[in-house]
Amino acid sequence: MNTLPPDIEDLRLRTRDFIRTVVMPAEPAPGDRLSEGERDRLQAAAKSAGVFAPHVAREYGGQGVPLQFWSPIFQEAGYSLIGPTVLNCQAPDEGNMHMLELIGTPAQKEQYLRPLVSGAARSCFGMTEPHPGAGSDPAALRTSAEKVDGGWVINGHKRFISGANNASFCIAMVRTPAIEAAADGGTSSPAPAGATMLLVDMDTPGVRIGEQISTMDRAIGGGHPHLHFEDVFVPDSAVLGSPGEGFRYAQVRLGPARLTHCMRWLGLARRAMDIALDRTNTREIFGSAMHELGIAQDMLALNVMDLETSDAIITKTAALLEADAKAGSALSSVAKAHTSEAVYRVIDRSLQLCGGDGVSDRLPLASYLNEVRAFRIYDGSNETHKWAIARRASAARRREVEAGAPFQASVDTAAAYSSTEA
Amino acid sequence: MNTLPPDIEDLRLRTRDFIRTVVMPAEPAPGDRLSEGERDRLQAAAKSAGVFAPHVAREYGGQGVPLQFWSPIFQEAGYSLIGPTVLNCQAPDEGNMHMLELIGTPAQKEQYLRPLVSGAARSCFGMTEPHPGAGSDPAALRTSAEKVDGGWVINGHKRFISGANNASFCIAMVRTPAIEAAADGGTSSPAPAGATMLLVDMDTPGVRIGEQISTMDRAIGGGHPHLHFEDVFVPDSAVLGSPGEGFRYAQVRLGPARLTHCMRWLGLARRAMDIALDRTNTREIFGSAMHELGIAQDMLALNVMDLETSDAIITKTAALLEADAKAGSALSSVAKAHTSEAVYRVIDRSLQLCGGDGVSDRLPLASYLNEVRAFRIYDGSNETHKWAIARRASAARRREVEAGAPFQASVDTAAAYSSTEA
Amino acid sequence: MNTLPPDIEDLRLRTRDFIRTVVMPAEPAPGDRLSEGERDRLQAAAKSAGVFAPHVAREYGGQGVPLQFWSPIFQEAGYSLIGPTVLNCQAPDEGNMHMLELIGTPAQKEQYLRPLVSGAARSCFGMTEPHPGAGSDPAALRTSAEKVDGGWVINGHKRFISGANNASFCIAMVRTPAIEAAADGGTSSPAPAGATMLLVDMDTPGVRIGEQISTMDRAIGGGHPHLHFEDVFVPDSAVLGSPGEGFRYAQVRLGPARLTHCMRWLGLARRAMDIALDRTNTREIFGSAMHELGIAQDMLALNVMDLETSDAIITKTAALLEADAKAGSALSSVAKAHTSEAVYRVIDRSLQLCGGDGVSDRLPLASYLNEVRAFRIYDGSNETHKWAIARRASAARRREVEAGAPFQASVDTAAAYSSTEA
Amino acid sequence: MNTLPPDIEDLRLRTRDFIRTVVMPAEPAPGDRLSEGERDRLQAAAKSAGVFAPHVAREYGGQGVPLQFWSPIFQEAGYSLIGPTVLNCQAPDEGNMHMLELIGTPAQKEQYLRPLVSGAARSCFGMTEPHPGAGSDPAALRTSAEKVDGGWVINGHKRFISGANNASFCIAMVRTPAIEAAADGGTSSPAPAGATMLLVDMDTPGVRIGEQISTMDRAIGGGHPHLHFEDVFVPDSAVLGSPGEGFRYAQVRLGPARLTHCMRWLGLARRAMDIALDRTNTREIFGSAMHELGIAQDMLALNVMDLETSDAIITKTAALLEADAKAGSALSSVAKAHTSEAVYRVIDRSLQLCGGDGVSDRLPLASYLNEVRAFRIYDGSNETHKWAIARRASAARRREVEAGAPFQASVDTAAAYSSTEA
Repeated sequence: MNTLPPDIEDLRLRTRDFIRTVVMPAEPAPGDRLSEGERDRLQAAAKSAGVFAPHVAREYGGQGVPLQFWSPIFQEAGYSLIGPTVLNCQAPDEGNMHMLELIGTPAQKEQYLRPLVSGAARSCFGMTEPHPGAGSDPAALRTSAEKVDGGWVINGHKRFISGANNASFCIAMVRTPAIEAAADGGTSSPAPAGATMLLVDMDTPGVRIGEQISTMDRAIGGGHPHLHFEDVFVPDSAVLGSPGEGFRYAQVRLGPARLTHCMRWLGLARRAMDIALDRTNTREIFGSAMHELGIAQDMLALNVMDLETSDAIITKTAALLEADAKAGSALSSVAKAHTSEAVYRVIDRSLQLCGGDGVSDRLPLASYLNEVRAFRIYDGSNETHKWAIARRASAARRREVEAGAPFQASVDTAAAYSSTEA
Repeated sequence: MNTLPPDIEDLRLRTRDFIRTVVMPAEPAPGDRLSEGERDRLQAAAKSAGVFAPHVAREYGGQGVPLQFWSPIFQEAGYSLIGPTVLNCQAPDEGNMHMLELIGTPAQKEQYLRPLVSGAARSCFGMTEPHPGAGSDPAALRTSAEKVDGGWVINGHKRFISGANNASFCIAMVRTPAIEAAADGGTSSPAPAGATMLLVDMDTPGVRIGEQISTMDRAIGGGHPHLHFEDVFVPDSAVLGSPGEGFRYAQVRLGPARLTHCMRWLGLARRAMDIALDRTNTREIFGSAMHELGIAQDMLALNVMDLETSDAIITKTAALLEADAKAGSALSSVAKAHTSEAVYRVIDRSLQLCGGDGVSDRLPLASYLNEVRAFRIYDGSNETHKWAIARRASAARRREVEAGAPFQASVDTAAAYSSTEA
Repeated sequence: MNTLPPDIEDLRLRTRDFIRTVVMPAEPAPGDRLSEGERDRLQAAAKSAGVFAPHVAREYGGQGVPLQFWSPIFQEAGYSLIGPTVLNCQAPDEGNMHMLELIGTPAQKEQYLRPLVSGAARSCFGMTEPHPGAGSDPAALRTSAEKVDGGWVINGHKRFISGANNASFCIAMVRTPAIEAAADGGTSSPAPAGATMLLVDMDTPGVRIGEQISTMDRAIGGGHPHLHFEDVFVPDSAVLGSPGEGFRYAQVRLGPARLTHCMRWLGLARRAMDIALDRTNTREIFGSAMHELGIAQDMLALNVMDLETSDAIITKTAALLEADAKAGSALSSVAKAHTSEAVYRVIDRSLQLCGGDGVSDRLPLASYLNEVRAFRIYDGSNETHKWAIARRASAARRREVEAGAPFQASVDTAAAYSSTEA
Repeated sequence: MNTLPPDIEDLRLRTRDFIRTVVMPAEPAPGDRLSEGERDRLQAAAKSAGVFAPHVAREYGGQGVPLQFWSPIFQEAGYSLIGPTVLNCQAPDEGNMHMLELIGTPAQKEQYLRPLVSGAARSCFGMTEPHPGAGSDPAALRTSAEKVDGGWVINGHKRFISGANNASFCIAMVRTPAIEAAADGGTSSPAPAGATMLLVDMDTPGVRIGEQISTMDRAIGGGHPHLHFEDVFVPDSAVLGSPGEGFRYAQVRLGPARLTHCMRWLGLARRAMDIALDRTNTREIFGSAMHELGIAQDMLALNVMDLETSDAIITKTAALLEADAKAGSALSSVAKAHTSEAVYRVIDRSLQLCGGDGVSDRLPLASYLNEVRAFRIYDGSNETHKWAIARRASAARRREVEAGAPFQASVDTAAAYSSTEA
């Protein structure tokens, strides 16, 4: 029941089969984490099966699927909580791969992208900071880098840095001053003041992982710790893209990254739905088959509606991201806010349909609920996205009216008054 | 912000322009109906502008847009409550045109389709009956036709027959007996017992429009009256498709018809949103611009989310209807249930944002709310669709498990018991 | 199933009986208004039946029910759309009676309250103004009165003045300057600048009813027109309460008035529910009794939950209004925002359960939906109430913490840092 | 801001103070359990403070608060997750105390109630069984007791038996046969077949705690394990109430028990709200104080609305339970379904307002969310309650119409037909 090109549909079916026959039997118990050994074994199997790193170009070891078709593949991966890790399309590495592919230099791709794709290296993305630094409001960025001869010196404090514990490098977002042409003796290009992305090896002196933050979720390996930069020197070649352009590049990463979260979690929501269907298809209650009880049917139907509308808005956004990155990024706010709430509802209803077993660890639904809850907060809280959505809609309409569209909220009745009331 | 082919995008922009510059200035006051004279004048203008009957093949006078791309065009049409009538893509004629194009004989197309497309004729679809006849449950059909020499004799009672007052013909769904090969002297083909669609001229003796039913909506011309068939004779050539296949054909009509309702009402919801945006962009309250107040922003953002997810699920369904009519028809239940509720919410929030003016006839929002309310009921009530959605999901999953997918709702712990409790 | 004192329960049952046997048979068709003659006849019958003006003291012709027990009585009245008019407890008169009883002088009570209670006179409340005057934000009041010798001269423009067409007097809210002791020759008391309520006979020169505003509702007689004051003189005795205290008195009126709207509309929602129950109790669909279909049961249960929670919060608020007017007024925001949305949902679901008949005028549900829609806007829009609710909650918590309650949102981990990271 | 009698208000304030000054500082970290030593220490402090066991008669060591006023006290207790345990008003003991008080013999009260109230003993309630036994459908009860000389022999399998690990006795619901007068030699009274409640000491031979079930919540001590009865003998004196009357007694326990869950969780929801308020009162984002941002205000207002409507429906139900136990028990379905969803929403919104900290263990909100989730399932799943609510409403209306109330869903228009269509 879809309209995919044959090669994508083939990869989707093979991914689906791989997840169900290889990955699902290897899933850890609810709440437990995947061991490093199992991770390695399963990634090797994924490579053999030709389903590894679906989103990366073939020259770097992936399957070369264009962004427009990531969704059906990532949903299959996300059907298992460990699927995205096994297929190496899990956050934060997946978003970092995407950005390195798009804006990395050839040398950076060899040094960072290739081992990241292969699974030999892992990474993190250093953006969020403790209050009052960068959080929902990226403009509050406080970590900064100073230009020195031949490179940059970073100081600052990040937190919620997912995956940092296992990472070999970090893409750090830092505030940088304006660089004049001759600032460091003529070797640097001029750059505006702004944010800059720097590739920082985690074993660089001065990089220190701080306090671990325990959160509701378990699926993203490597925790969400604090991360400190204390006089960390990186060379000029560590700049990803151009200095001062960090926020623009972040959009390149964040729009798709937000969307791939939607895809993966949507896959997990489908899993929850299947569990609920297996339950309602086989249980009797009050003398009726559960799947024939109207209240259960209502919940199942709402699940389908949430799944299908999420799938549809993701598809629309992915196509738009390729056609018009800016418009696609704007629409990704809608996709994120809708999908993050829809998948939560789907898992919540599925759990409810399983009754007491649903809240127990006999079924994974309680753990799924805890995994997805945070998605309504990270990648921009839904409230922040709604704010952005509203502002864009207001501004777009204002421009339309300024361009001549008829203003439609007038309740001015001056003419009527003069005739009626004279 | 879309990815349409250039010719479709061109038609969309011309339709948009036509609606805003020609149709909107001609709109009747809220609650009033379009006069026949205005209808004729505006349809002529639409023909001149090359935007008339977008969904019909060029050979019959339309613009030849494939179903996959009806949505952007129909949304532009629906931006005005009278737009679909002016462009001759309003229910029930539009669905009847679609079915005649797909399954009519060449003679039927000349006699019925061509004048229907041109606007010279109007039509109705005779399906719904008074309780306990065909309603949400089409299988309860009671109106019947008896085979006689050279034709059929219809008896029965329909109601909520939208457009009947102005129609020159009706496509009537009737119950018919099994026809054996030689039943009427050898000229008929054998046919199974079932439902049959018959083309009935409204001036045929025995066709009688009964009591008018007053409802909340005004946009569909010709009311929703009762319709009586009393010994109505129609010739064999009046059969649309084959006898006994009526329910199958109805699916051909109903899936797309349900979706075109979504498209048109989504256009109207965009209109309501623009009115709300014009209001919030220009009003101050409690010393702030309304569009900067968070509670208003939240409502505006929810509107965008409802509009965009509806647009996305319609697009997905339209593509699927062309690729796989059965799967598309199934998905149209999701599109219908979601969109009919989403557009209602959008108009309701838009009205709320306009305060006292929103419930007055200074703005058209109260009338829009009344227009769309019934869409949660007709074309299959949303509850009926949810029931169908749930049953399909349950059955599909059952087949999957029977085909070998792992059953996932097991909480059987026999093994654990033996070890723990032995 | 309640815990009312016997005399209240007796009045409730008699009111219930009166509404069902006398009032309901006299209801006009959906969308039509009650004629003056019928109004007079039915009010006389209500007086005979001893159920007239339940909320007013016996000495002025009412039944003397304390505010705490208005709810069960008003709900019975509201079960018919014309019930509150027949029992003379409809807005705006009911709120005006309440305020006159509380703060009117003996002379004002004789002149204005007594005929208002008897039904001989009707009234309106002149508060709302065209933008940018008093609306959701009362502080924006622009209509003003100037102190002159022996009285006041009013100038200004009101709108949405419910009942003005039939009113013999208006309680007008106007802006007034500070009055010094000797301002008018020593006869006036000093007063602060602020708002003042003035009793204005509608036949006073300069009072002019302006343009009529057509809205979705029909139940409140006398429309919602504009109202103009052009050099209108009223004597000093027209001041209701004290000059400059208008906003404070408005709270006396608005808290209970908002709550009585809740009571009446809750009664109408119970009516809608009964219609839906009669439908589901007697209809079959898809071979099942509707009331045994789970999706219908879910909607019915949600209706009960909305009805019962609304009833409960109204009861709580009414008791609090008598015990602590300020706290009760604050809680009335919660009651209003919850109930206005709950009754709309109840009627909407009831209509949905009646299918095509629900949107037709064979049943009154579509008209009920239109009647209650505006209640989410008037008496303070729900958004304004939510804003007030949030601000009060924030301020109350702030005071609590300032008074020593432990602050609970600290995520400061300085201590942990020093030990973990030193 | 309430209307409580002075002695209740005094106890409420002392409870509030005790929770905030003694209990809250002793709370374990999120996800951890209260140690036995701390439990003992805090219970002793509660006794000293005169706030212990508020719901139990003074003669058994409680504070003697009538059911009608439990809510304000239990809400104060529930403000801390360990509060109800410290005050010894936590499930399942609290419900067992209530039932023992109402239907226990004097000897049973001495043996079981007194030590239960003092905290010396703990208990469990043995009702739920593995599928297909008693769960949402109590009539499916399979554990049974056979009448033998001088007592009963129990065999069966229970699960989700909250508190069983720490309990010294269990009130077990078992299926029992009809007892004829002379069945056991003349000493027994005759009894109908049905369910019977038996007091079973946990150290009775044949009582065996089975597999532990790990669930999302932590607050109820003693887990939710399986419980096995294998030829367990109890004497005749172990019957609580009369044989065969178990389901009726269960209603005595379940109505109030369901409501006390509402009270306690509502207290916890108030705690979550205070955390959110402390956050929004002190944080700035995008240059504004959070508590002044409309989207945050909307969430805060919805929280207040959920808190207040829950409080109101609980109050109404508690009063009704005392006035009319059957009607009160019916209404407790509404209170349970509404409150269990409302408190979940309140905690969910509060967590959302705290952003990344909300999903971390720096704040207890994630653990609160996990604690309350199961309440939508236990004590009768909300779907089961909704089903019961709908059936009661349908039956009540049917009786009303049968008793003469006008049937209101008629759309029969025979008369109109004859005049219009003749």
